[in-house]
Amino acid sequence: MCGIVGYVGSQQVAPILLDGLSKLEYRGYDSAGVAVYTGEQLEVVKAKGRLEILRDMLDGGRNLKGTIGIGHTRWATHGQPSDVNSHPHISSSGRFAIVHNGIIENYMQLKNRLMEKGFAFASETDSEVIAQLIEYYYNGDILDTVVMLQNSLEGSYALGILCLDHPDEIIAMRKDSPLIVGLGEGENFIASDIPAILSYTRDIYHLEEKEIVVMRADEVKVYDTSKELVDKEVFHVDWDVSAAEKGGYEHFMIKEIMEQPKALTDTIKPRIQDGEVVLDDITLTKDQLEKVDKILIVACGSAYHTGIVAKYVIEGLTRKPVEVDLASEFRYRDPILTEHTLVVIISQSGETADTLAALRYAKQQGARTLAIVNVVGSSIAKESDDVIYTWAGPEIAVATTKAYSCQLAVLYLLGVYVGRQLGKISDEENLGMIRELLALPEKVATVLEKKEDIQYFASRHYADKDVFFLGRNLDYAVCMEGSLKLKEISYIHSEAYAAGELKHGTISLIEEGTLVVAVATQDRLFDKTMSNVKEVKARGAEVLGLTTEHNTRINETTDFQFYIPETLDIFLPSLAIVPLQLFGYYMASMKGCDIDKPRNLAKSVTVE
Amino acid sequence: MCGIVGYVGSQQVAPILLDGLSKLEYRGYDSAGVAVYTGEQLEVVKAKGRLEILRDMLDGGRNLKGTIGIGHTRWATHGQPSDVNSHPHISSSGRFAIVHNGIIENYMQLKNRLMEKGFAFASETDSEVIAQLIEYYYNGDILDTVVMLQNSLEGSYALGILCLDHPDEIIAMRKDSPLIVGLGEGENFIASDIPAILSYTRDIYHLEEKEIVVMRADEVKVYDTSKELVDKEVFHVDWDVSAAEKGGYEHFMIKEIMEQPKALTDTIKPRIQDGEVVLDDITLTKDQLEKVDKILIVACGSAYHTGIVAKYVIEGLTRKPVEVDLASEFRYRDPILTEHTLVVIISQSGETADTLAALRYAKQQGARTLAIVNVVGSSIAKESDDVIYTWAGPEIAVATTKAYSCQLAVLYLLGVYVGRQLGKISDEENLGMIRELLALPEKVATVLEKKEDIQYFASRHYADKDVFFLGRNLDYAVCMEGSLKLKEISYIHSEAYAAGELKHGTISLIEEGTLVVAVATQDRLFDKTMSNVKEVKARGAEVLGLTTEHNTRINETTDFQFYIPETLDIFLPSLAIVPLQLFGYYMASMKGCDIDKPRNLAKSVTVE
Repeated sequence: MCGIVGYVGSQQVAPILLDGLSKLEYRGYDSAGVAVYTGEQLEVVKAKGRLEILRDMLDGGRNLKGTIGIGHTRWATHGQPSDVNSHPHISSSGRFAIVHNGIIENYMQLKNRLMEKGFAFASETDSEVIAQLIEYYYNGDILDTVVMLQNSLEGSYALGILCLDHPDEIIAMRKDSPLIVGLGEGENFIASDIPAILSYTRDIYHLEEKEIVVMRADEVKVYDTSKELVDKEVFHVDWDVSAAEKGGYEHFMIKEIMEQPKALTDTIKPRIQDGEVVLDDITLTKDQLEKVDKILIVACGSAYHTGIVAKYVIEGLTRKPVEVDLASEFRYRDPILTEHTLVVIISQSGETADTLAALRYAKQQGARTLAIVNVVGSSIAKESDDVIYTWAGPEIAVATTKAYSCQLAVLYLLGVYVGRQLGKISDEENLGMIRELLALPEKVATVLEKKEDIQYFASRHYADKDVFFLGRNLDYAVCMEGSLKLKEISYIHSEAYAAGELKHGTISLIEEGTLVVAVATQDRLFDKTMSNVKEVKARGAEVLGLTTEHNTRINETTDFQFYIPETLDIFLPSLAIVPLQLFGYYMASMKGCDIDKPRNLAKSVTVE
Repeated sequence: MCGIVGYVGSQQVAPILLDGLSKLEYRGYDSAGVAVYTGEQLEVVKAKGRLEILRDMLDGGRNLKGTIGIGHTRWATHGQPSDVNSHPHISSSGRFAIVHNGIIENYMQLKNRLMEKGFAFASETDSEVIAQLIEYYYNGDILDTVVMLQNSLEGSYALGILCLDHPDEIIAMRKDSPLIVGLGEGENFIASDIPAILSYTRDIYHLEEKEIVVMRADEVKVYDTSKELVDKEVFHVDWDVSAAEKGGYEHFMIKEIMEQPKALTDTIKPRIQDGEVVLDDITLTKDQLEKVDKILIVACGSAYHTGIVAKYVIEGLTRKPVEVDLASEFRYRDPILTEHTLVVIISQSGETADTLAALRYAKQQGARTLAIVNVVGSSIAKESDDVIYTWAGPEIAVATTKAYSCQLAVLYLLGVYVGRQLGKISDEENLGMIRELLALPEKVATVLEKKEDIQYFASRHYADKDVFFLGRNLDYAVCMEGSLKLKEISYIHSEAYAAGELKHGTISLIEEGTLVVAVATQDRLFDKTMSNVKEVKARGAEVLGLTTEHNTRINETTDFQFYIPETLDIFLPSLAIVPLQLFGYYMASMKGCDIDKPRNLAKSVTVE
């Protein structure tokens, strides 16, 4: 996790670092700090807590002089959030200051070795080892030093380094953690992500693994690990800055929930041409698809939940077996992979560490890979054989909503596309699906119009301690995501159950007044799910029933109802998830939670 | 759910019914009731709550005269537990009394039709419809009447019926719910399960679907749906009655936990001959096994959790792809099944409704089936192509422990057997596995000797509201079962997470003092899991670490430790689950919960 920013130029650096860090707070906000060359020394100012605290200490940056510096916003992995564990870290002699994003896996070994040689450590972090190790290796040649450093480090890192002996240079590099270079006029930048530098420049370098950047105000040199100069291509960012603002909403999350019709339109519409799904993005041929004997979907968190929906849908549309794996589990279960396995990797950021590692593992085993990613040029997008982008736009709230919905839409498109290629979908079925896919954004908008109903329901339940979500089949997959939304931002302990499984244990947690959300959009399972609802009602549960417009019978068995429009069964998850997103949002809002930045969570999980 | 008993003979019936019902309380205990022919009428006595209440009302049975009657203990499905919803139900005229186990799926239609014809209903249950429908169909010929009844009912039922016009007969039948006939001397019985009648007779009939029993004191006639007499075979029960007693322990659950070494020995040892796993029970040939292209494990609750372990283990040992499905989800996801799919069905009781339905579905689709079952002669055992019994003995506590452990052992045996048949396991590997399988009971005993350590730890945490279990791979599968044990008997909201997944949402629930149980028995994943433990520690969690004896490094990252003996990685779940069973037990015990009969739960879930 963590966010890094660095600047060298002619302006006062501290305000620029603070500004950049404020754009990276979604990457972590346990603590923040900066290191600036003051003309005499490397001065470090850092503090536990939100960036505001640091900003106050620095009087908005004004009381720290200097035109070269690095900054960091942290998400704790090794050692608790604290002043001393904050970055930047400085070497014993004060010659080096570093900021680090990632995890150094062999830090205990390195630390013990350095301590034997007399180095003293101030913090509990893995990152401080890097500062001391540079000091230890330093022989006057900074490039030699960082090559040696890279050889010693195991794990992941994006690094920004200042050296007192080279006070006009920032050294930077990355491995398995994101870092970009921003190219200005007489000034240059490093950052973990583009928003941090977007007010200053739109020209960037993407860095390859282990490339070393030596950056001055007037030049940026990039070397490979053999210290050969690399000829980099300039990438021009054409994002709209205002898209990353809240646009009048109280939180990014509700803004992003409301943006879903637009995001779905952007993602679906260009992929439908002349009544057929067209995936120009991918190179998989019909012949290759026919030979696929298993589709394996790998993802984390909400993206994993879209995979559960997709298992049902894609298996149904293509009659190819589909498995879904948590990325963190995938590599360690020795999965059976062959050249005929299609591994589908899903990640909003395209940098999710576990998912990236799963992608590399799958490729190494010879499987064909296809990524569904929201961030163009991200590591997963670059390394996968094929990539289909979700066009959700930047997502800032930690709890994903529009990216989830767009991932789901892409999986639908993929299912229809593959099914059609394989001749499993008739012209008539195709027509119906295309029509309903195109209608989804409008139907989502209809659901959003009724958001006050959910707000009212939340107002009666926001003090609840435990909430259960019940559903079968696709409704169960939706319940998983609904439960995650609620718990990650409201801190209410909620859990999703396959409705038929409840009586095998969890029903013992139901008591008078326990809130149960029953999702029953699938007509053929409606009665079965209502049987389970009666079981929890008989134990005193209060039940919110979620179903489609014609199933008014749900009134007989539930206390409160929410209706979504009709569409094909397989597309109902796209509509059913929306009231559950709203439910999570309003529950957290009424509890006064920090919705866009829930405690302990980071937007893009770039550690394992 | 629900338990049924019936008696006709020369003794006073009410005490016999109460005695039988007391043996069936594990099937449900929301309410209980009896119907007895008094010489003039069918008298019904019933009450909400435990059987003791009914026993008091009847003065132990003494104040209700008569020698023919039926009894029922209920687990609510339609309508809350209440006096009026209790069984037996009586028809409007008072001519018929019935007891029912199962769910009538079309009861609303039937009820509406009968109400139009002027029938009045006293209860909210589906079962009362049966009593009224018999009344409606009755033409003087009871056999005709019940055939018409069977034609009208959709769903599942085991039924006991009394008719005032035939006061010396009990009519009984079953479909998708268990029912047996007990054969005495001048007296006969019906019951949902064998323990109910074991004090009176050991000779029984198993009933096939829809067979109709007409039972008098001196004869039992069984008819098929064409009213043809069926020639039934007598089955002799050779159980030890004392095995179904608590044997000095405070609860059946702790008794059954402590019985695990014995149960494992019984299950494993006879299947190992001359250093090889021998499964005489099954008819699957080597040739058939070679053609298997997918193994699909289907189960509910704890049995499902053994399936998760087995996925890792059997996939590893056989290199055949293994999928695991919840039985309640399996049928509705349109799974891809062929004659080369081996469907493994796991159920302690062999009567689990969802699992039985899954078995039938799989057979219908042409798949090969193999059941792992604890109850001999149960429906699943009878209907599956092959069956391997767990020899755990009767399990009475609702929360399974020894049956879970024996299911796991059978899955290990199956994995080694199939792997060996397919030539995937070398002689040397086989030797190591056989040795460790045989050593498992003794190692489980070693863990049980340290139960006071867990008791002490529970004493510090039994007031906790939320508990999280973390692990990776096989440890994650163990966490699922550990979490279920805790929640089903202590009513503490606990949840299991794949350790690497926690940071994708649930870590937001961790706050100062939250209890986290970290299972880290798998050496190759130890460091990865410890990284996740550090993340929760950094947020204030208190952590119990569970690992093998040599991993004393766990002391550095956890607050409390429990060590299990070493064995092969794949067999560690058998040892790791034991402290978690004990943890659930002691937590619930200190909270004063009704451990053997947790609220809302029934032992054998014979409804969907």
